[in-house]
Amino acid sequence: MERQKKYFTAGPAELYPRFEEYLREFTDKQLGSISHRSGEFKNIYRFADEQLRILLNIPEENAIMFTGSASEIWEKSLQSLVEFESFHLVNGSFSEKYYQYAQALQKQAVAFTKPLGEGFTYNEIQVPEYAELVCITQNETSTGVQMREADIHKLKRSHAGRLFSVDVVSSAPIPVLDFKLLDSVFFSVQKNFGMPAGLGVWIANEKCLARALELKEKGVGIGAHHDLPTLWKNARQFQNPSTPNVLGIFLLGKIAEDMNRTGIENIRKTNALNAKKLYSFFENRPGFSAAVKDPELRSKTVAVFNTEIPSAQIIRQLQEKNLVIGSGYGAGKDSQIRISNFIANSSENIAELLHELDKI
Amino acid sequence: MERQKKYFTAGPAELYPRFEEYLREFTDKQLGSISHRSGEFKNIYRFADEQLRILLNIPEENAIMFTGSASEIWEKSLQSLVEFESFHLVNGSFSEKYYQYAQALQKQAVAFTKPLGEGFTYNEIQVPEYAELVCITQNETSTGVQMREADIHKLKRSHAGRLFSVDVVSSAPIPVLDFKLLDSVFFSVQKNFGMPAGLGVWIANEKCLARALELKEKGVGIGAHHDLPTLWKNARQFQNPSTPNVLGIFLLGKIAEDMNRTGIENIRKTNALNAKKLYSFFENRPGFSAAVKDPELRSKTVAVFNTEIPSAQIIRQLQEKNLVIGSGYGAGKDSQIRISNFIANSSENIAELLHELDKI
Repeated sequence: MERQKKYFTAGPAELYPRFEEYLREFTDKQLGSISHRSGEFKNIYRFADEQLRILLNIPEENAIMFTGSASEIWEKSLQSLVEFESFHLVNGSFSEKYYQYAQALQKQAVAFTKPLGEGFTYNEIQVPEYAELVCITQNETSTGVQMREADIHKLKRSHAGRLFSVDVVSSAPIPVLDFKLLDSVFFSVQKNFGMPAGLGVWIANEKCLARALELKEKGVGIGAHHDLPTLWKNARQFQNPSTPNVLGIFLLGKIAEDMNRTGIENIRKTNALNAKKLYSFFENRPGFSAAVKDPELRSKTVAVFNTEIPSAQIIRQLQEKNLVIGSGYGAGKDSQIRISNFIANSSENIAELLHELDKI
Repeated sequence: MERQKKYFTAGPAELYPRFEEYLREFTDKQLGSISHRSGEFKNIYRFADEQLRILLNIPEENAIMFTGSASEIWEKSLQSLVEFESFHLVNGSFSEKYYQYAQALQKQAVAFTKPLGEGFTYNEIQVPEYAELVCITQNETSTGVQMREADIHKLKRSHAGRLFSVDVVSSAPIPVLDFKLLDSVFFSVQKNFGMPAGLGVWIANEKCLARALELKEKGVGIGAHHDLPTLWKNARQFQNPSTPNVLGIFLLGKIAEDMNRTGIENIRKTNALNAKKLYSFFENRPGFSAAVKDPELRSKTVAVFNTEIPSAQIIRQLQEKNLVIGSGYGAGKDSQIRISNFIANSSENIAELLHELDKI
């Protein structure tokens, strides 16, 4: 069945083009019934693991672990990696939530906060002396602000002794991250991977494992469910401590394989081209302006624009053409639109969207 | 496509007969792309909520909340409901894990432990004076031992001031539980609901909410992700704090509706009949014996039998007929078989299984 609507929302989002094909393979093979302790399941996990390593250039040293959501990884990373103090770059709702999770876990959470629509560059960031973990939201889904990979890498290099945790929930696999450098990186699948929600992916290195074991040894509570050492130990055997979202892991492996067939460089090239088209379209367009002033800090996957007329009006007009875009987040709800530039949003679909927007 | 194999495993298990039909509805309607903050999603949540209330006779007062798995609810219930001490009835791997979660969370965890294959009756249970939460695994999936509903209810009535948390992971919706009495009840969907794994369901009453808020107020850490007050507040608006497994919630609503059409009493009647057939078949059968001696404590949904010949041999012979049963769990791996009597295991399929077993 052909999809009626085209989703340009920030996630849940347009599903990957071959999603239904892979879903059919899952049901035809009755994979929903197999034991999560079976060799058959381990092969599914192993396959997803292998494909993600190729796609993102993840070294063997790192473990790839699965949770129920990326939000869960906010909690688990803070529990397993912070004894006293975490440091957060906050410039929107999702970086704010990571920060609030640290507070709820009774850590000393320190935030460097920027107004909505602004981002962070290397030079201006002062990592507090006692911060054990630096938490960075590489792509702030609520405001469409990105942090450049080079700035993240530079910051980590100049604070090699601290652990870094990088949220790429709505940008992976687009950012070119150095997994030999970054300690903890995580994302969810209902954004750029074009899958139904219900799976978080956590990639961590041995420094994270050592830290978690050290905290546990010290008697610091690192939680009981999906704590890093337990996830790690299981992941090394292509298993999960509890029954995981087998369907999600299966689909992720298949979609990552498909992306590897296209080639991540081609995917990134297409993404950059479409991002350019999107931002150029709105530039100098009366009634619109990019919500992020600095072009270098504009997200490549979630583009946000200020609108003079109420955003609901634009959203409604597009909806009549079966094109679904998002409103702004929180305070920007009525005065902004958000448009995804995910892998499942093909160049043709983006051209169609811009064509229809042109009539407004 | 017709399913080749028939699964009689304890979960992941045989999928619900109409599973694929509902899955197709989900993809045809593009529900994998809708926002988890939209009215459309809230209607999906509301529908699952309504159908579960009918199916399990859950009063309006209780909240129905979703997590990534039932294991996650082990953690969240202990964090939100226990300041110092929890009490656990332990007679197998899963009740043991609930107990271990309490230890990992640094609670004073007290266990009343029974040998594998044995169960608990009301008279013998002494709830420790300071236990705040009584944790009961109504159906111990690893050993096939159940605790009778009447015993659970009696125990709660005689300890009305304590909170009770009841794990019905592999038995719901079969046990007839009094949700006006029991404070916290939870299950997962890859067992008796015949769904792919990746969703936990937590039903809690206002006493649980009050307790969690009291602990939070006191400064006791109740966690940051999916803590009870946050889950509760969102559930009351048919939402989840993070992006949930929308597919899982959709399927659960549809399957629960289907079960309500059949009628829970009919479902329980069929279940009891098939359980009787299963246990009777092995009774007096040379080479086999029920692993649970007391007939009253034998699980209605996961039947475990001791085998004289290695269980692998029996499992293999059935596999040749495309019938999949489970081995024993842990220590019982080689000397026991486990056979599910779930709703998706129709009477016809169970008859077929027994027919083939008869030849061995």
